[in-house]
This record gives sequence, C-alpha cells and structure tokens, in this order.
Amino acid sequence: MERTRHQGMAKNTYMRWRLPLICLLWEVAMIILFGVFVHFGPEADAHWEEEKHQMNLTSDIENDFYFRYPSFQDVHVMIFVGFGFLMTFLKRYGFGAVGFNFLLAAFGIQWALLMQGWFHSFQNGKILIGVENLINADFCVGSVCIAFGAILGKTSPVQLLIMTLFQVTLFAVNEYILLNLLHVKDAGGSMTIHTFGAYFGLTVTRFLYRPNLEQSKDREGSVYHSDLFAMIGTLYLWMYWPSFNSAISEHGDAQHRAAINTYCSLAACVLTTMAFSSMLQKKGKLDMVHIQNATLAGGVAVGTSAEMMLTPYGSLIVGFICGIVSTVGYVYLTPILESKLHIQDTCGIHNLHGMPGLIGGIVGAITAAAATEDVYGKEGFIKAFDFTGSYKTRTPSVQGGFQAAGIVVSLLMAFAGGTLVGAILKLPIWGDAADENCFEDDIYWEVPEDEESDVYHMHNPDKAASP
Amino acid sequence: MERTRHQGMAKNTYMRWRLPLICLLWEVAMIILFGVFVHFGPEADAHWEEEKHQMNLTSDIENDFYFRYPSFQDVHVMIFVGFGFLMTFLKRYGFGAVGFNFLLAAFGIQWALLMQGWFHSFQNGKILIGVENLINADFCVGSVCIAFGAILGKTSPVQLLIMTLFQVTLFAVNEYILLNLLHVKDAGGSMTIHTFGAYFGLTVTRFLYRPNLEQSKDREGSVYHSDLFAMIGTLYLWMYWPSFNSAISEHGDAQHRAAINTYCSLAACVLTTMAFSSMLQKKGKLDMVHIQNATLAGGVAVGTSAEMMLTPYGSLIVGFICGIVSTVGYVYLTPILESKLHIQDTCGIHNLHGMPGLIGGIVGAITAAAATEDVYGKEGFIKAFDFTGSYKTRTPSVQGGFQAAGIVVSLLMAFAGGTLVGAILKLPIWGDAADENCFEDDIYWEVPEDEESDVYHMHNPDKAASP
Amino acid sequence: MERTRHQGMAKNTYMRWRLPLICLLWEVAMIILFGVFVHFGPEADAHWEEEKHQMNLTSDIENDFYFRYPSFQDVHVMIFVGFGFLMTFLKRYGFGAVGFNFLLAAFGIQWALLMQGWFHSFQNGKILIGVENLINADFCVGSVCIAFGAILGKTSPVQLLIMTLFQVTLFAVNEYILLNLLHVKDAGGSMTIHTFGAYFGLTVTRFLYRPNLEQSKDREGSVYHSDLFAMIGTLYLWMYWPSFNSAISEHGDAQHRAAINTYCSLAACVLTTMAFSSMLQKKGKLDMVHIQNATLAGGVAVGTSAEMMLTPYGSLIVGFICGIVSTVGYVYLTPILESKLHIQDTCGIHNLHGMPGLIGGIVGAITAAAATEDVYGKEGFIKAFDFTGSYKTRTPSVQGGFQAAGIVVSLLMAFAGGTLVGAILKLPIWGDAADENCFEDDIYWEVPEDEESDVYHMHNPDKAASP
Repeated sequence: MERTRHQGMAKNTYMRWRLPLICLLWEVAMIILFGVFVHFGPEADAHWEEEKHQMNLTSDIENDFYFRYPSFQDVHVMIFVGFGFLMTFLKRYGFGAVGFNFLLAAFGIQWALLMQGWFHSFQNGKILIGVENLINADFCVGSVCIAFGAILGKTSPVQLLIMTLFQVTLFAVNEYILLNLLHVKDAGGSMTIHTFGAYFGLTVTRFLYRPNLEQSKDREGSVYHSDLFAMIGTLYLWMYWPSFNSAISEHGDAQHRAAINTYCSLAACVLTTMAFSSMLQKKGKLDMVHIQNATLAGGVAVGTSAEMMLTPYGSLIVGFICGIVSTVGYVYLTPILESKLHIQDTCGIHNLHGMPGLIGGIVGAITAAAATEDVYGKEGFIKAFDFTGSYKTRTPSVQGGFQAAGIVVSLLMAFAGGTLVGAILKLPIWGDAADENCFEDDIYWEVPEDEESDVYHMHNPDKAASP
Repeated sequence: MERTRHQGMAKNTYMRWRLPLICLLWEVAMIILFGVFVHFGPEADAHWEEEKHQMNLTSDIENDFYFRYPSFQDVHVMIFVGFGFLMTFLKRYGFGAVGFNFLLAAFGIQWALLMQGWFHSFQNGKILIGVENLINADFCVGSVCIAFGAILGKTSPVQLLIMTLFQVTLFAVNEYILLNLLHVKDAGGSMTIHTFGAYFGLTVTRFLYRPNLEQSKDREGSVYHSDLFAMIGTLYLWMYWPSFNSAISEHGDAQHRAAINTYCSLAACVLTTMAFSSMLQKKGKLDMVHIQNATLAGGVAVGTSAEMMLTPYGSLIVGFICGIVSTVGYVYLTPILESKLHIQDTCGIHNLHGMPGLIGGIVGAITAAAATEDVYGKEGFIKAFDFTGSYKTRTPSVQGGFQAAGIVVSLLMAFAGGTLVGAILKLPIWGDAADENCFEDDIYWEVPEDEESDVYHMHNPDKAASP
Repeated sequence: MERTRHQGMAKNTYMRWRLPLICLLWEVAMIILFGVFVHFGPEADAHWEEEKHQMNLTSDIENDFYFRYPSFQDVHVMIFVGFGFLMTFLKRYGFGAVGFNFLLAAFGIQWALLMQGWFHSFQNGKILIGVENLINADFCVGSVCIAFGAILGKTSPVQLLIMTLFQVTLFAVNEYILLNLLHVKDAGGSMTIHTFGAYFGLTVTRFLYRPNLEQSKDREGSVYHSDLFAMIGTLYLWMYWPSFNSAISEHGDAQHRAAINTYCSLAACVLTTMAFSSMLQKKGKLDMVHIQNATLAGGVAVGTSAEMMLTPYGSLIVGFICGIVSTVGYVYLTPILESKLHIQDTCGIHNLHGMPGLIGGIVGAITAAAATEDVYGKEGFIKAFDFTGSYKTRTPSVQGGFQAAGIVVSLLMAFAGGTLVGAILKLPIWGDAADENCFEDDIYWEVPEDEESDVYHMHNPDKAASP
C-alpha cells in the first residue's frame, strides 16, 4: 500500500473527475448523433410488413436477421469474452483486462455504428441500421481490442477511450478506401481489422515506450488460475472464428465456405503451435503463452480468403504456416522488438494479429488473382468478387493487385494513425500509471483486501489468524 | 471446522432426508403431470409432414424452430451460466451460487412448462409444446433466479425449491393477467420477469431478515478470482440480452428491432455505470460490484419496449439513465434498505432488476402510448400491438394505460406472493443456516479440504510441508 | 522441483522431439490427404448459384448452412470448452485438461473429416464436405474426449495423439456398420459416441493400469476454484446438449423434437442427481463430482431416441433414472472398478457415458420397436426411420432388433479397439509420467513459478518478501 501511495504522488492516476467526464460527455454526444442520424433499416422497421410485399418476399425467414443473427452473437462473444478473457493472463490485471475491454468496446460499437454508417449505410440523411451493421461495429471494435493488447497494463481508461475514438474513425476511413474505392474483398478482416489494428497498436505502444518497465516485471506474468481464465478467451475466439470470417459474407455458399475454410485453418494451426512450442523450449515443455495465442493465428490468416475458393486443403496450409510463424514470433521476435525497436507488446499482438494479418492479406491477393470461372462457375465468379457495374471488366489478376494495394494502405493508415494517437496519448494529463505500477489493478480498481489464501485457510486457525 | 460443527448444533442444516425427499417427490409429480398433459406441438410432432401440406408450407425452414432456436440457446446460457456465475462473486459461496441456481432452474423449467402450458398452450386437454414454450419456461425461471439473488447465501436448497414452486405458479398467473386479460406487450419481461421477480425476492428477504447477519460479514465479500468468475456471468448476460428481449417477439422485423434496441441500450449503460462508479468513490476507483451488475440495467429497462419502435436513440437514453440509477442504488440505496427497511439484498437485485424493471414498464407504456400509424405503417401498427379481434379498436393511449396497469399488477402480485412465500420459508424446519454460517458453502457442500495455496507451494518444500 | 527432476530420470517424459515430430508429420499427412480428397460440397461451393437453379431453390436460406450452423457452433463449444473445462477439476492438471483436449480434438476433427468422408461423403473420388460433416467430425472427436477422461493425468500428449488416430478410425468403421449396414438410428450418438467412447477408454485405461497410482493421490482431487472452472464445462455441456442431440437430425420436426426431449431429460436428471448426491453421503452434503457429471447423464441417455417420438414424459423418466444410476455409480461402482478390475477411471466416464450410453441404446431400441404409424403419421413414420428403398419393408420391431444389435457391435468394437490401442500405448517409448508424477502439469507444461498467494499478499510487506 505504501508503495502505491508513493507512486500516486509521482504520477497522478486519480480518475474521479477525468473518467466520469469523458464517459458522460461522449455518451451524450452519442445520444445526440444517434438522434439526428440513426434509424432502423427496412428489415428492422415496423414498415417491413409493407416492404415484404414490395420485395415479393413470402416469408419472414427472408429477413437478414435470420441469416446473420447467430453469427452476430458469436462475434459479440468473441469481442467481449474472447478478447476480454484472453488478456486476463496477467496475475494482477484481470479486472483491467476484462473491465477496460468492456468499456472501450461498449463505447466503440456506438461510435462505429455512426462512422461506418456514414460511409456505408447513409441514405437521405439517415443511417439505416440492421444486424449487419451490428456485426460491422463489433468488427471495427475488434481492431481496437487488438491494439489494446499491445498497451495492456500501461494505460489509463481515459487513454483507452481516446484511442478508441480515433482508431474507430481511422478504421472506418481505411475500410472505406479498401472496400469502396479499391473494391477489395476482406470479409474476415485480415487487412482492415488485424493488420490495421495490430500495426496501429504497435505504433502507439512505441510512442508510449517505458524504459523502466522492468520495475513492473514481477507482475508481467501469469499465475496458474489466470492462465486458465485466459484459456476461456482463447477457446471462444478459436471456436467462434468460423462465424467471424463468415458473418458478413454473401448469403448462401459464401458464408458456408468461409466457415469451413476457417475451421480447417484453425485446426491445422493448433498442431504446429504445439509442435513449435515444445520444440523451441530447451526442456521441451509447452508454453501457455503460445497455446493461448498462436493457435488463433490460423483464423486471422484466412480472414480475407475464407469466403473465396481457398479450399480446405489450402486452408490447412495457411494454418500450418501461421502456427509456426506466430510461435516463432513469440519466442524470438517479441524480445527483439522490445530491445531493439523499443516496442513493448504486452500480449504479443504482432505475432497473433500483425504477421498473420499480413499473411492473410497476401493469401487473399493470391487467391483472388488465381480465381477462374471454371473454379467458381460463371455466376459464382461474378457474385464472389462482385464484378458488376463499374467493376464488370475487372480481371482476377487486377483484383489480386488491388488486394495487395489494400495491405499497403492498411499499413500506412496504421502507422500514420498510430503516430497521431501515440503523440496525443503521450501528453502527461491522462492519468497513466508510473513504470513501477504497471500491470496492477489496484491503481484503477477497488481490489478486494482479503487474501485469497485466507479463504482456504479458514479451517486452520493458525493461518487464518496470521494477517 | 470446530466453529461449523458448533453451529450445526444450534441450527439443524442436515439435508440428508429433506433434500432428497423433496427432489424425488417433485420430480415424480412432474413425470405424472407431463404424462397426463404434455405433448409435442404440431411443429415438433412427427405429423409435421402432413401439417406442412395443410399449412401450405413449402420448406422445413418455416418451422418455428429455425426462427427461435438460436435465441433459445442464448437465453438458456443466460439462465444457467449468466445468473449462476454472476452470483459466484462471494468468496466462499461459489458452489452454492452455481449449484443451487442449477437445481432451482432445472426444477423450475419443468413446472413452468406445465403452469404456462395450462394458461397458454392448452388444447383439448393437452399442453402442446414447442421451442417457444422452452424459451418461456426459461424466462419464468429467470424471475426465480432474480429473487434468488436477494436471499443468496442465507437459505437452504429446500427453501429454494419451495420458493421456486410458488414463484413459478404466481409468475404464470401474473403473466396470464398481463398478457391475456390486460393485453399488455412485454416480450422482454420488464414487468413480468424483472419487476415481479425483484419485488417478490425483496419481500421474501424482508421476511427472512437476520438481525445478526454481520456475524457472517467477513464472508460477504469477494476475492480476486471470484470477481473474475462473476464477470463470466455478467458478460454472458450482457452479450445475450439482445436475444433475451427478442426471443419471443413476432417473426421478422420485431425480433430484428428488439435485438438492435437492446444492443444500443446496453452499450450506453456501460459508460454511465463506469462514470458513476468512479465518481461516487472518494478515490475515484472503479468498483467491480457496479461493473458486474449495473452494466446490465439497460437490458432490463428495454424489456418491454425493445420490440416497439423505441429507436436506437431512445434506447441509448434509457441505457444512459439506468446505468446511473442502478449504480447510485448500489452506493446509497442498498445500505438504507438494510438499515431502515431491514431488507438484506445480497446481490442488490433492487438496483439491477427492481428499479430498472419499473423504468422498463414505464418506458414501455410511454412508447406504446406514443405509437402512430405513421411510425409503424398501417399493417405494422396492427401487428406490433396485436390490435385484432376484440382489441381492434384499442388506441395507443389506451394501450399505454393498460401497460401502466400491468406494472401495478406485477408489483401487487410480487408483494402478496412474496409475503406468502416469506411466511412459509420462515418456518424453522427447512434447514437454513445460522446467522454466523451464511455465505458459506461448507454447510451444504463437500468442500475440498486441500488448501489452494498448497498447490502453488509445491516447489517450496518449506511451505508445502507446513500444513 | 527436486522431486520432479528425480522422476525425470526414472521415466523419460522429455517431449522435445517426440511431440513436434508427431504433430508435424501428421499435419503434413492431413494436408496431402486433404489435397487429394477433400472438396467443398455443393452447398459450400461457388457453383451453388447454378446448383440452386437446378434444385429449384428460390432462396439462399434453403442452404443447409442455415439449418445446422447454430447447432454446429453449440456442439463445437461442447467439445472444446465443455469437455476441456469439465476436466479441469484436478488441482494441478488444468493446463493438461484444457490444452491436451484442444490438441487431440484439433487433430481428431481433421482425421475424422477424412475417415467419415470416405465412408459417407465420397463421390467420384472426392470427399464433399459441408456443415454436416463438420458436426459429424466434432461428434467423432467427442468420443475421443470421453476416452481421454478415463486416462486423464496419466498419459503423455504423444499417447493421446496416437489414441486419437486409432479411435477416430475405429469410430468411423463402427459408425459405418451401425448407420449403413444395420440401418440403425443414432443421431445423438448414445451408441456410436458414448457407449463406444466410454468402453474404448475404459479398456485402454485397464491396459495402462498403474498399481502405485496412490503415490499421486494428493493431486487426484480438486481445489475450490478448480471445481468452479469444471462447472463451466458442465454447464456448457448441459445447456448445449439439446443442440448436440438435434444437430444432424432431419430438417424440421425431428430437430425440433430432439431438442425438446433432451431439454426435458436433462432437467429431470439434475433433480435425481442432487437427491442421491445428498442421500448417499453420511453428512448429507452435496458432492461437486456428482453435480459436475451425473447431471449430464440424461443427455447421453436420450442420444438415440431424442429425435423419435419419445415424448417429454418419456424423456423425464429416462433422465430421472440416469441421474440415479450415474450418481450411484460414482459412489459405489468406481471404487470397485479400480480395486477389483484394475480400471482406473479418472473422470468416472463409466458413470457419465458408459452406463447412460447403454441405457440410451436400449431406450432407443424400445422406442423404435414401439413406433406406430398412428403415433408418427404415415409420412412421418417413413421419414423418421428412413424406411425407404431396401428398408421399405422393415417393421418397427425388426428395427428395434437392429438397434439392439448396434449396442452389441459398439461394445465389441470398443473392447477390441481398446485392447489394440491399450497394448500400443503400453510401449515404454511414449513419454508418460511415472506413477508419482501423474495429475501434474509441471511434467509437460511451463507452469508459472510465482505462487498464487504471493499476488494477494502484495500489500503485506512481510509475506511479499518471504519467498
């Protein structure tokens, strides 16, 4: 306690007016903007009954809700439980991991509904929303959760909310450039979510470099049960990733295919992760950090191509490679990034989202470039790449080129945006903790005073009495 | 151990004949009643093939199963994992929280299938059940889980089963009055589930007032990891609440709209909860009790109106208000309820379900009263409020009045029912624990003798040897 | 540490070349075989657009994806979180439980896609896969997870992968015999998954009998929080079991009915489990082992009959009986199996999957034999049992006989296969732990050195300094 209070003097982490102010101000802004702009889309509006007649639909089951709601709920679980619990591995930062993730995501989805709405669902001055918008908002926030992983334990909730505001904005711009201007396919977000989110977060954490972070080193690790909590996050991300990659694909075969490809890639990824986790360790033991993270790289890396005719076989290869790349990254690259480039990446998002995201963009470009009418069928080919209207004459190889351009744009946006936000967050007014108080819930949370061991010593009068 | 045994003499908490007797007796009763009454509804019966021809359905996808099963599963998770884990925050009552919730819900859904079946699905002496009945049974049990929150840690499993029997019965009666006699809309159950459940539970706990409960005060709190377990419950309730509020709405736009409104309300609620949790604390730190509970109030409060044209903007406002009301309730109201009114509310259900439930009823009444054909469309208007048959001429403002009446009826039923059940549970024969043994799993559960710390001391020969 | 190192000499548990080798080799084999054989089925292929025209489908919603994907995801959760966390009850084997389950299931689903594909989805030299194949692969792996329960804590990951390879193979053969040659119905797998998986695992563990296992007895138990982690597994299995038993049933009423029957059976099972758990214990306290396991027996036991016209009433009876049988098994049978038959069954799979699986097979045979056109309707009768083609003239009683034969075949396959695999796993080259090191994560995993208690002593300078 002494120590904490001492640091409190060194750095002011007092949140009592800053956090409430920003939360209330921004929520009021959301209410006003929603009031002005956001309306139900036709399939969620009570006029749907009449809409149905006009669209000649005979059944309510044709409502997009029934095509996408189950996937939406899976994605929702990934954002809040998946990312939230994945980050609880730290021994004393479980509240911050789950709680701040909850806070930033809850704000982020509202702001994303607006930003993405203005770009994609804007009609006659109104943003018309439906279940697909909810999924896209969750997706957008996913990229913020990724960036959060890099700065986990080192920032105040106020900094996180500011980062969320900017990152969601930039995400929407980047997404608009890729999907609308470049006409790129990226349903599972290898580029828009993972590459952008990871390199954005890495740039921010580079700006927030803490040379004396080793003062918190004793807390930058796990305990037995915190590793089990983290596995809840891992497994929910892993299991629901097929829903993530298929959630906003075209109805029918595309959603079906995206789920299968992702399932295959993730399965292969687990085996190579386990293999390299054991192989790269002198004693040959498995490392929970790898199992918790690298097993997911296969889902990241088919984010662009899962809805294409990647084939189960191709998916296995992608998963195979990414399990290796990611695990090797945790063992060799992360320490180098910190020592040489001063990038302190708490969760290793470069290994889980950065490199696999890049691979995913490249695999997507190749898969698109290799597409033929023979493989897709005449109608399927046009539908898969939406080669209609002004894109009627685009060829697969040109599409491949644009896909590759999408990777570059995402990277540039991430670096530029990360620089901007990193510089803002570096201002000494946001209440971040001192170097020796990082990875510590006690700074921002009421932590139970009781000692855990106490509970289990109840039957032992000696121990129970001691503290 | 000594202490526990001592109390065992003071109050008889021996369950060996009482618990088995009531479980077996009631389950046999269920079997007999199911045998006499319960049959598959037309969409679950093997005659469905013929039914399809008669109903002119061309596809199996028109079976209600495909409209509602995903929502059903989400609701199911909310009841068993959501409520169960939400209550594991107590340091030594995790088994009781999850286990007794499991027990009472498993019994409750059976009894609810019968009670609700007699009122709503009774044809020619048969109760015909389908997926909608399963959802409604889960809903009904949800109100018991809420009431359980008020008396958590202070009652025996036998008392919980007795309360479940009565509460399910009264729930079904109240629901019948509201939905059938008053023709009130309440798809997400602000009134029938939350208001009724909360004030029922509060009345019961008032009757079971324990003046010396401070003797168990050292156990009426959390430890670090029990707070993380509770967050699993919180997040599953939060994430799946859109399914809860949309599960039994009309097919199509109503389900779609209910999910969107709930998503928005919950998102806003998180921000105001965080704001007030920090603001109301001298040190400005966040309190896990608020994050675990008040963030959910936004879901409760749009339970009635989510399927109406509340609009995303209106939902944000409701969520905004409820996060504040609920957090303020935890800080100021709960202590007063205990000290002045002798209402000991373990989980603070008054803040999470009571007040937000009332707000939800009022918002529903206002939203209904404000409905116009312009906003809903001619057909949509009739469909949304089911203004057909004898309700053909009911106007929105009359509907608003009836909605308001529904709140009053629910409250009266809750007070009357809670009084009855509280009086019964006060009888000294049900095996509840003494005041100094509350919030203690050891009374009703085999608790592992091993000390947790032991496990982690294995590498340290000194410590491992000590106990 | 000393002790562990000492054992390391006695038995070589070094995984550094063995585990990577087998993982990489097998994954490469998977890639090659997938490359040669596995293609998208018509509903996941980009040619679906043309397919739709040919099949005269007017809507994408007719794609099997929308009938089965939600159930698939529930089953997926059961395999990875359900089984994984159910086995975390051991105080020091949480990493192994979740992690090895993850590994074997990720490999198993790939191999199952191939094996089941060759038997059931093979056309013109190609295996055509869709969402139903993914479900079946998960089902197949479920039987391996069951067998894993018997040998939990006593085997190396290499042994588990070898067992998975063989068991998946034999599962597919057994399944082919039952479903195709005997024309048996078993949608929820009472016979193919549970009976086969359990008796296979029990035979294997009989071969791996460790006479000195009591040397690890201090670790063959739970601690408070490990029991709560296990409840996560239990509840997800319990809640999603209706999806499990209905996932591959025919579209429409059969899926609907299977979910209802399973829901009912599981609810009844909870009450009799609680009753007998309390009744069979001198102090009348509930035992977490029973609550974690026996409550699930009702799902196992309606695996064959859930899609038939078992009726909710019949389901309650089955659940009622199985809760009793399973709990009694844990109390009386498991100790006898170990002492008399030398079957060391870590998780008690005989009580959860073995006996309830047999009961499920028998209930299925009886329900089939009792089927009449009156109960099912003329069309429903033919559809329910697929009495078409060469089975056009099969009568219910004959079907009942074949169902019974299916139980016997499954048992024989389990004993024969278990013997083969048990003999292979007994070879002293697979790196299993010595008797005194069983149920210990430290053998195969990097376990955090930090002591849990340390974390919570931070405010207490004396304790924090001590280690």
